[in-house]
Amino acid sequence: MTYGILMAGGIGSRFWPRSREAYPKQFLNVFGSTSLLQQTFARIEPLIPAARNYVVTHERYTALTNRQLPHVHVLAEPISRNTAPCIAFAAIVLRAQDKDATMVVLPADHQIHDEYQFRAVLEVAIEKAQAPGTLVTIGIKPSYAATGYGYIQYDGPTSERVRAYPVKTFAEKPNLATAERFLDSGDFLWNSGIFVWRADTILEKMKQHLPGIFEAFEKAASALGTPQEGEAIKAAYLRSTRISVDYGVMERAKNVHVVPGAFGWNDIGDWRAVYDLSQKNNHGNVLHNQVIVHDAGRCMVHGGSRLVVLVGTHDLLVVDTDDALLICHRENAQQVKNVVEYLHARQLTEFV
Amino acid sequence: MTYGILMAGGIGSRFWPRSREAYPKQFLNVFGSTSLLQQTFARIEPLIPAARNYVVTHERYTALTNRQLPHVHVLAEPISRNTAPCIAFAAIVLRAQDKDATMVVLPADHQIHDEYQFRAVLEVAIEKAQAPGTLVTIGIKPSYAATGYGYIQYDGPTSERVRAYPVKTFAEKPNLATAERFLDSGDFLWNSGIFVWRADTILEKMKQHLPGIFEAFEKAASALGTPQEGEAIKAAYLRSTRISVDYGVMERAKNVHVVPGAFGWNDIGDWRAVYDLSQKNNHGNVLHNQVIVHDAGRCMVHGGSRLVVLVGTHDLLVVDTDDALLICHRENAQQVKNVVEYLHARQLTEFV
Repeated sequence: MTYGILMAGGIGSRFWPRSREAYPKQFLNVFGSTSLLQQTFARIEPLIPAARNYVVTHERYTALTNRQLPHVHVLAEPISRNTAPCIAFAAIVLRAQDKDATMVVLPADHQIHDEYQFRAVLEVAIEKAQAPGTLVTIGIKPSYAATGYGYIQYDGPTSERVRAYPVKTFAEKPNLATAERFLDSGDFLWNSGIFVWRADTILEKMKQHLPGIFEAFEKAASALGTPQEGEAIKAAYLRSTRISVDYGVMERAKNVHVVPGAFGWNDIGDWRAVYDLSQKNNHGNVLHNQVIVHDAGRCMVHGGSRLVVLVGTHDLLVVDTDDALLICHRENAQQVKNVVEYLHARQLTEFV
Repeated sequence: MTYGILMAGGIGSRFWPRSREAYPKQFLNVFGSTSLLQQTFARIEPLIPAARNYVVTHERYTALTNRQLPHVHVLAEPISRNTAPCIAFAAIVLRAQDKDATMVVLPADHQIHDEYQFRAVLEVAIEKAQAPGTLVTIGIKPSYAATGYGYIQYDGPTSERVRAYPVKTFAEKPNLATAERFLDSGDFLWNSGIFVWRADTILEKMKQHLPGIFEAFEKAASALGTPQEGEAIKAAYLRSTRISVDYGVMERAKNVHVVPGAFGWNDIGDWRAVYDLSQKNNHGNVLHNQVIVHDAGRCMVHGGSRLVVLVGTHDLLVVDTDDALLICHRENAQQVKNVVEYLHARQLTEFV
């Protein structure tokens, strides 16, 4: 059977001050009325019913997850260790109840425009992933020379039809010149971080490429469903290194395939991405809550409880909360995470 | 005897949101620890003791004025009608108790660096103003081609010594080219709005040039010190037109003299002026209260109760209060008053 694994463990520090450790971005409704996590679930549910979906997140977010997705299982991580341990945890849980379990791994902070095309692409990936030993990833046909995404080089495309192709290489985030070469070449895709594979297959690959993590979770597997489960999982995380499944497995493994998709995908990485994807007025402004603008353009304001007035400003991202206010130039949105690091370094933890 | 008349009737809408109708700029300490009004009083007190100083302000600010300057008299205006009625009111009050009263009229929103030089200039002006029929104004030797001030053309200077000179003409705020001509000519001064004259003299000049206002206040004069005083003053204001003493009297009168001064004068007109006059750090930032900056320069933040974070911003004026936040480009500071007008027009009076 097929299962959904929604990865919602991040703290989204680039969305400070709206995103706090107590309430990270994937639980926020930065667009419309539901959260990024709820939108991720709503997209997959027509393919995988609620009872076969699992949210993997830090244990401090268990209650929050249950409130937003009451019908979905939660796998609580005792500590955050990037995606490889997270996926190992999900894999041993699924394998224990279904030896033929296939996992659809979905980051919980994406925006996707064409859900139907998205599910059509997943169905092809799921079918391909039935073959033991096969890892499948979803690649996005690039619409511009993005420098903020990793890339996948593949053998194709040989047809317009949605199908899987062998992966040649994975490439880190490129500089602009390289990104433009990738775009022109036609055989590079954006790495979406969406994966499909059998639970036993990914564990087998981890045994090869991440033996430490594999052994830690194999050891914990025997305790699943016993009173010792919590302690065993905690021990497994403590023994695991902090590493992503891309770097730890995908870039090293054989028999990796990619299904190219064109369904209007965006990784909501920072406030600038929210601005780019938001509906703008004819001055290019995006204004939420009580805002007055005078000679201002290309600004986004996520207001709080107070009146916000912009006079003569351009290209600003303004996020107002009760205890903290961010005013950021649109081109500097990535640096917001540095501010959160600074707040930690300065022990200003009431703001993080 | 000589008396101080501190004009503190304005609402300072260009200092919104810190300046509110309930608490205007002259009562705020935008610099240091005392308000602009208290600083104005402190400058004049060595020359004119507290008991001979009067603050003319709207009646709604009487309590506020008494709190800030407990030893100074308050003349409460029932409505605001610019400076001519304000000065007529003060003149009839002084004349009633001292037929030889000389008035030193001081706007309450100036910043002056050299107090000693300032008082030396005033002493020369006071002496000159003893001659009946003489109006004396203080002119500021211009330090640059300012377009935000009115100018005074005078006959001089003929010596370095501080002395009074006849005024040729008053000029409105000029454009930059004209301001540069004024600066080069050497016989133009900034119009400071500081005046010295005998009470009977200014009333005599008003009889000539502003007969309506003159008659209104002459009529009220007879009621001073009686239970009818309040009603009589209110009637005088209601009968008075809204006009400045510069336009209504100075520009039309004969026998007007100016004493040029060089004591580091600034008219604190808007937030940009506050920035210009504030001590800056080596990124050109002026930061009050809890502020964190990352790649930001030439910004001023008057923070409130919350943390303010700037990322990658330049040339911004940020003023944070509990119910309203202003983010203004430094070049647009003058337009803040338009926002206040807009708030009135939209009935958003809780914010003004």
